[in-house]
Amino acid sequence: MIVLQFANLRKDRCDVLTVEIEHVDVATMEMLEQQGVDCQPKASTIRIIQDKYLQKVHFSRHAIPLPEFMQIDDLEGAKRAGELFGYPLMLKSKRLAYDGRGNAVAHNEEELSSAVAALGGFDRGLYVEKWAPFVKELAVIVARGRDNSILCYPVVETIHKENICHIVRAPANVSWDIRKHATDVAYKAVSSLEGAGVFAVELFLTGDGQILLNEVAPRPHNSGHHTIEACYTSQFEQHLRAVVGLPLGEPSMKTPAAVMYNILGEDEGEPGFILAHQLIRRALSIPGATVHWYDKPEMRKQRKMGHVTIVGPSMGDVEERLKSILKGEGSDCKAAVTPRVGIIMGSDSDLPVMKDAAKILNMFGVPYEVKIVSAHRTPEMMFSYASSALERGIQIIVAGAGGAAHLPGMVAALTPLPVIGVPVRASALDGLDSLLSIVQMPRGVPVATVAINNATNAGLLAVRMMGIRDADLLARMSQYQEDTRNDVLRKAEKLEKDGWESYLNP
Amino acid sequence: MIVLQFANLRKDRCDVLTVEIEHVDVATMEMLEQQGVDCQPKASTIRIIQDKYLQKVHFSRHAIPLPEFMQIDDLEGAKRAGELFGYPLMLKSKRLAYDGRGNAVAHNEEELSSAVAALGGFDRGLYVEKWAPFVKELAVIVARGRDNSILCYPVVETIHKENICHIVRAPANVSWDIRKHATDVAYKAVSSLEGAGVFAVELFLTGDGQILLNEVAPRPHNSGHHTIEACYTSQFEQHLRAVVGLPLGEPSMKTPAAVMYNILGEDEGEPGFILAHQLIRRALSIPGATVHWYDKPEMRKQRKMGHVTIVGPSMGDVEERLKSILKGEGSDCKAAVTPRVGIIMGSDSDLPVMKDAAKILNMFGVPYEVKIVSAHRTPEMMFSYASSALERGIQIIVAGAGGAAHLPGMVAALTPLPVIGVPVRASALDGLDSLLSIVQMPRGVPVATVAINNATNAGLLAVRMMGIRDADLLARMSQYQEDTRNDVLRKAEKLEKDGWESYLNP
Repeated sequence: MIVLQFANLRKDRCDVLTVEIEHVDVATMEMLEQQGVDCQPKASTIRIIQDKYLQKVHFSRHAIPLPEFMQIDDLEGAKRAGELFGYPLMLKSKRLAYDGRGNAVAHNEEELSSAVAALGGFDRGLYVEKWAPFVKELAVIVARGRDNSILCYPVVETIHKENICHIVRAPANVSWDIRKHATDVAYKAVSSLEGAGVFAVELFLTGDGQILLNEVAPRPHNSGHHTIEACYTSQFEQHLRAVVGLPLGEPSMKTPAAVMYNILGEDEGEPGFILAHQLIRRALSIPGATVHWYDKPEMRKQRKMGHVTIVGPSMGDVEERLKSILKGEGSDCKAAVTPRVGIIMGSDSDLPVMKDAAKILNMFGVPYEVKIVSAHRTPEMMFSYASSALERGIQIIVAGAGGAAHLPGMVAALTPLPVIGVPVRASALDGLDSLLSIVQMPRGVPVATVAINNATNAGLLAVRMMGIRDADLLARMSQYQEDTRNDVLRKAEKLEKDGWESYLNP
Repeated sequence: MIVLQFANLRKDRCDVLTVEIEHVDVATMEMLEQQGVDCQPKASTIRIIQDKYLQKVHFSRHAIPLPEFMQIDDLEGAKRAGELFGYPLMLKSKRLAYDGRGNAVAHNEEELSSAVAALGGFDRGLYVEKWAPFVKELAVIVARGRDNSILCYPVVETIHKENICHIVRAPANVSWDIRKHATDVAYKAVSSLEGAGVFAVELFLTGDGQILLNEVAPRPHNSGHHTIEACYTSQFEQHLRAVVGLPLGEPSMKTPAAVMYNILGEDEGEPGFILAHQLIRRALSIPGATVHWYDKPEMRKQRKMGHVTIVGPSMGDVEERLKSILKGEGSDCKAAVTPRVGIIMGSDSDLPVMKDAAKILNMFGVPYEVKIVSAHRTPEMMFSYASSALERGIQIIVAGAGGAAHLPGMVAALTPLPVIGVPVRASALDGLDSLLSIVQMPRGVPVATVAINNATNAGLLAVRMMGIRDADLLARMSQYQEDTRNDVLRKAEKLEKDGWESYLNP
């Protein structure tokens, strides 16, 4: 128990009191509130949250979906719970539980007594939770201002290792509906508590798309550390804004993707520090990676010693960078560039046309890949290429095909990415067949079609698309337009000077 | 003069010594270097930079382009310089000059003596510079590591108010060639100096596209404050990385645009603070704005009291937000949303088709504007619309037209933004005329063409394009695809269940 050091606080010398951990002496906090000290969030909230059983009762009363639970006072009670909820059964301490401490799993009735013993017996207060068959753990940082305005950060996915938060992915790779649903539950949970501040709402996503509340922390939280680099307002600034009554800051992400990796203690003493420092050294040479080292004097197994946040243009991209930090390939990593554009074509006979898109991307320094993927002859490969492109970090697909040209449209049906279609002139109809096969897509699935055989324009269109959020590419596109204008002006001048006859017969 | 407090430093107790301002006692620094203290950047660099005349001589010897200059020792010398360089003539103190202090302009020979007097006479060392007929002031933050690796931040534009930096725009709104040229000059200037650290290189851009060096600061600088929020590595972290020998961090921008506004002291005392705090209060309610208040005890006219950085999706957007902070419209500002997509059409007869694009953007919550702009009947309006779209914050243009449909292609020729063309079926040829007029663009100017009359797909394509760097829109597009698939599956199920006859005749 962290003892409150502020029992002698005076209202006239303290504008607002907040907490950075919920394990405080809440009786003192309540006394201070009675004396007029402004606590944010309220002591009532801390009281509810620091007792996980009370927390479940509270949220259950407010109709927040959560796994079934019941208090257990003795082994008989635990057995009854086991009969009711089945196994595995999660036994939890009511208080002082965090980072996996205070949790024990019983896989069958025989394991109940050892699980109870592991939690220190019934004296400290235990309860059980029905096992939540979750497929992912999600979290939402929610901020509430003193005016009760509430803003939610984008939903993240948290990946635990032995019950300790290990990796956070922002945003969570779940459907928009799930994100909305998770945000709704988090919003509702925080609305039921009193006081201003930042709250972290941890959630389970089950296989059938249910969102269940796991628990709430009344403070900035490990699942929001990425907000420092990835969001317009960090959770720490947001907490201060909230408790002192400033307007809440914009919570959305300023980079498309972020991943947070906790540096957990390995071995005790020097060898553990050496490992951690090697990892940090690698992280420092990865673009978009920021290292936070907490400078704790001692390392213990599984202790949070620091974290690394990596931000970048896509989840595929930041995951790749994290991998190279963990694999020890840090120094080579700058060379490993994720392709941003996929240039695909139905046949190698399209390559003489499609190469022009690659030439443009070369000119603008955009990394790309070139592949043969036929809708008709390799439908499985087409399917897997299109469905995996996003997670591999591809941002735009340029697809060329001729005749009954199905590749661009089929790929567009299988990805949310923009697809640029290049009609390649095949044997008949001067390419009109290719053009109409590509451009006349049904409502719902667009293909950005360019002129017949004009892969140059496909490359330029890809650059323009990326320029929407890439100021350098935008500036380079303007420069390209100026350069091509100057080329034409030079020709115009030459024609003016030489006359049309000598221009044609130099 | 800031007196060095580190004369009693010992090599074994100090790993590295750096400076946060160049106005230090360089003799002491040199002595420390001789005693083995590791100074980064080197004392030689500080010596060159703290004397602006010496700095000019140094860079001139290294063939860095800069305005002509000469030392003046008396009024006769000043007059000779005036004859040589013409008027207005810039007189400068060699030392202790910053934030406009130490500069005086003489507009004619008569003003020379008063300018000299304003600078405290010839005793402190004066020189003159030929007036640089600049159209913009640019700056480049350059980092050099201990291994002599050099990385340059994107070129910014600095706007001064009475010689004091007032606004910084990142990136600078100049052509790509100018950016490259400015970066080259900055790189070359820093290469000529010794030692690791961050350097700020201030430059003039002249009307004929020349880049001239103004001066260099051997430290993090006001022209790099935006890097805290806008770049992958802030200039402050970069300076520490550089001087202690860590790998340099990625300097590029993680948001497309940023503007930094210095809060300069207004009135002395309380009223000045009240004005500043009102501005801060407004800034706190602007999305993407971060307030830095230096908490200086006293306010003086033109003193830098703090700054606000605003980051966002485009320069037009962040400029709008800055305006609303300065105009005092902070609280209303959240409502004023910049359109991101411009939907334009050649005639109101296209509206029944083009409305479908607007409906899609409504569904996805993307702000847009709808306008009639005819290539043939309002060519001037078309010209001004297309050329100004980027700076107004428009990211994508959706243009619909029928028949000899020139609007999409002409607009694409006038902007570096992606243009989506919607062929509207006119009176003849079932819309094939419109389609071919829009899609068959020449090499160099792409139009992303969708199916005839299919403005729905134009809207969806715009959302896919924005999803490249907007994880929320990307997730919503995936959800849209899942929803439309489910719609079809429901129909398939109904057909299966009811049989085709009752499906057709319910």
